[in-house]
Amino acid sequence: MSDVANSGSPLSGAAARPRLVMKFGGTSVANIERIRNVARHVKREIEAGFDVAVVVSAMSGKTNELVAWCKEASPLHDAREYDAVVASGEQVTSGLLAIVLQDMGVQARSWQGWQIPILTDQAHGSARIESIDGSEIVKRFSERSEVAVVAGFQGMHKATGRIATLGRGGSDTSAVALAAAIGAARCDIYTDVDGVYTTDPRIVPKARRLEKVAFEEMLEMASLGAKVLQVRSVEVAMVHKVPTYVRSSFDDPAHPQSGTLICAEEDIMEAQVVTGIAFSRDEAQITLRRVADKPGVAAAIFVPLADANINVDMIIQVVSDDQASTDITFTVPSADYDRARAILEKASSTIGFASVTGATDVVKVSAIGIGMRSHAGVAARAFKALSEKGINIRAITTSEIKFSVLIDAAYTELAVRTLHSLYGLDKA
Amino acid sequence: MSDVANSGSPLSGAAARPRLVMKFGGTSVANIERIRNVARHVKREIEAGFDVAVVVSAMSGKTNELVAWCKEASPLHDAREYDAVVASGEQVTSGLLAIVLQDMGVQARSWQGWQIPILTDQAHGSARIESIDGSEIVKRFSERSEVAVVAGFQGMHKATGRIATLGRGGSDTSAVALAAAIGAARCDIYTDVDGVYTTDPRIVPKARRLEKVAFEEMLEMASLGAKVLQVRSVEVAMVHKVPTYVRSSFDDPAHPQSGTLICAEEDIMEAQVVTGIAFSRDEAQITLRRVADKPGVAAAIFVPLADANINVDMIIQVVSDDQASTDITFTVPSADYDRARAILEKASSTIGFASVTGATDVVKVSAIGIGMRSHAGVAARAFKALSEKGINIRAITTSEIKFSVLIDAAYTELAVRTLHSLYGLDKA
Repeated sequence: MSDVANSGSPLSGAAARPRLVMKFGGTSVANIERIRNVARHVKREIEAGFDVAVVVSAMSGKTNELVAWCKEASPLHDAREYDAVVASGEQVTSGLLAIVLQDMGVQARSWQGWQIPILTDQAHGSARIESIDGSEIVKRFSERSEVAVVAGFQGMHKATGRIATLGRGGSDTSAVALAAAIGAARCDIYTDVDGVYTTDPRIVPKARRLEKVAFEEMLEMASLGAKVLQVRSVEVAMVHKVPTYVRSSFDDPAHPQSGTLICAEEDIMEAQVVTGIAFSRDEAQITLRRVADKPGVAAAIFVPLADANINVDMIIQVVSDDQASTDITFTVPSADYDRARAILEKASSTIGFASVTGATDVVKVSAIGIGMRSHAGVAARAFKALSEKGINIRAITTSEIKFSVLIDAAYTELAVRTLHSLYGLDKA
Repeated sequence: MSDVANSGSPLSGAAARPRLVMKFGGTSVANIERIRNVARHVKREIEAGFDVAVVVSAMSGKTNELVAWCKEASPLHDAREYDAVVASGEQVTSGLLAIVLQDMGVQARSWQGWQIPILTDQAHGSARIESIDGSEIVKRFSERSEVAVVAGFQGMHKATGRIATLGRGGSDTSAVALAAAIGAARCDIYTDVDGVYTTDPRIVPKARRLEKVAFEEMLEMASLGAKVLQVRSVEVAMVHKVPTYVRSSFDDPAHPQSGTLICAEEDIMEAQVVTGIAFSRDEAQITLRRVADKPGVAAAIFVPLADANINVDMIIQVVSDDQASTDITFTVPSADYDRARAILEKASSTIGFASVTGATDVVKVSAIGIGMRSHAGVAARAFKALSEKGINIRAITTSEIKFSVLIDAAYTELAVRTLHSLYGLDKA
């Protein structure tokens, strides 16, 4: 968590109108007609009394085209040059939306990351925002009622002045961080779904849209596989307490529908024990058999993986069948599976184990809810219910507000539906 | 002429390598394979001992796509937003070429106009460069032998910090101005022709490529219809005495061919009387009949046209058939023809004339050569030769180093070939 977003000085004046940040993704700005629709949403909010900053992504397909050119230019391209190339997509959209807004009689201007500036660290390609100077945008709100159209996904490295991008989905983070910087009352994320659901409606037709979700819950859901928001944007929203509203960009601008408000726990009247069920297929399991049960063996296994930037998630350790050593099972992202196995094979003499086995056809199913803090036995009910359906649990992890089980991928839908019903999430 | 290009401080060190600016247009960077070819040209010049700055245009077709979006967004779009949108094309190419150069083992980085910075006036869409700070680029030449890959066509407005583009063909101007700013020994303009010809080879198969052309001659040729270089780039080259070499981007990088050097008059040993024949079809003729022959009538005609930004070029005045008034004929760009006629009709009572007639099927054919200064009767020979071919001359203008005749468009090829032969320009 190092996305810091403030301007260093209080920006809200006494008689200021409330401020709103609106963020639109690539499919919402895919062509001029859709950009015109975005402008109608913006105009509605101005007429409702808000000063508005809009954050836009690249027109859909454009980022992929630019990324493909970089790869063709060199498989090992300079991340700084990649950023210069790829950030151009958002630059185009910001200018086009400003033109369309002006055409509709709304004062507007585009802002590139370096113009505001949005300053970042030097992790080109996945940079973190360090500060945003929102003062000029706020000044123009009050002096000219001018909409700020901000190119998402990008900033400028504070020391070198080079363009830095925030990584895939970074426009969500741009929007929330900007909302914090200008003291916005809310950050609206317009997306291709109409909110956050209790689980993926494609898997569970009875999934319900949530009216409200706590920041902590949303953070877990995003981390555990729900794809509606980028994890970092939720972190920033939570730290800076930015109420973030996920809603549909396909709504009629004249008659917008409800979405899901991500907000502080205290703003949710009656917390559910379990708010949602997430699942991730991007997991792989590795098991080391008959590992010598001696001090330092965990370090011998996990330090080389950490050095290779491989995230180890669930870890369980059981006594081996020979009663003299232990079996250690853990999960890694499936993209890192082959690399992780190779590293372990190489370190086998240092570690000392009989064999390494693994599985990629596994899935991690998680239940999330701040109510778990005050309710005992929530996970235990799940283990029983899954067992009754004949689903074998390969590994378990728990934390204060969620638990996860690793199961065979073939049981994904069954497990998700079982837990969804178990915790009363099915719609009436 | 207000493109000023210098950094305000001397940039050349004692032991510095000579510097070269290379400029590549849209067709030369249309895809990654062509960009790779551009990189080979760059590498050759580095190996030949130069420090190199490369100026690139947008990939061919991209600028048109961006312009079309702006027009679709609003026919009356904000020029500042248009600039933000359109400048993204060059940004992409600069990053991609830097990646390709690095991939070939050449140190390189991209530079956007605002990063250098290239500062401009506020004429968004056709801005003029006011200054270029080349110091960091030169520092990196000496410290890291790093190639500067500069996005052409763009700068930043000095007061507002907004992106400003230089207008169509502006990358030529970027290149020449940058060459002046970093004290380059030469500016190489790579284009889809292999140099400057005595006239258009599609009209006159006997046209010859010129080894050298004086700045003044090239300026006239560009102004009078030769499309190889943008007029403003030649102005900047002339004022700052930047030897500018027009050459083919389709050459094998390992075996480059000769082009045409645009240089100071004193560097051309034996000046030709006539160096080239240019022609422009973008002319229209307007004739006002029986204009009252009284003081102030010229102002009454031409001030309203100037106020409407219509350039009047050739003007002739003859006594009318009634012997009591005059007929006035002049030319305007054909794009402004309808507008000019409407303005004149509206001002008819102020001006006082019997009728306004016009023609758009006319062409201006010009002969250019610094040798005309020291040779009398050059134009007279042309009038005679054209007359012998039965070509009627509608209007004539002359200046120190060129003369132009306005004729019926049907005679274009005949007139160009006649003059090309007359002045000994046909190749053997």
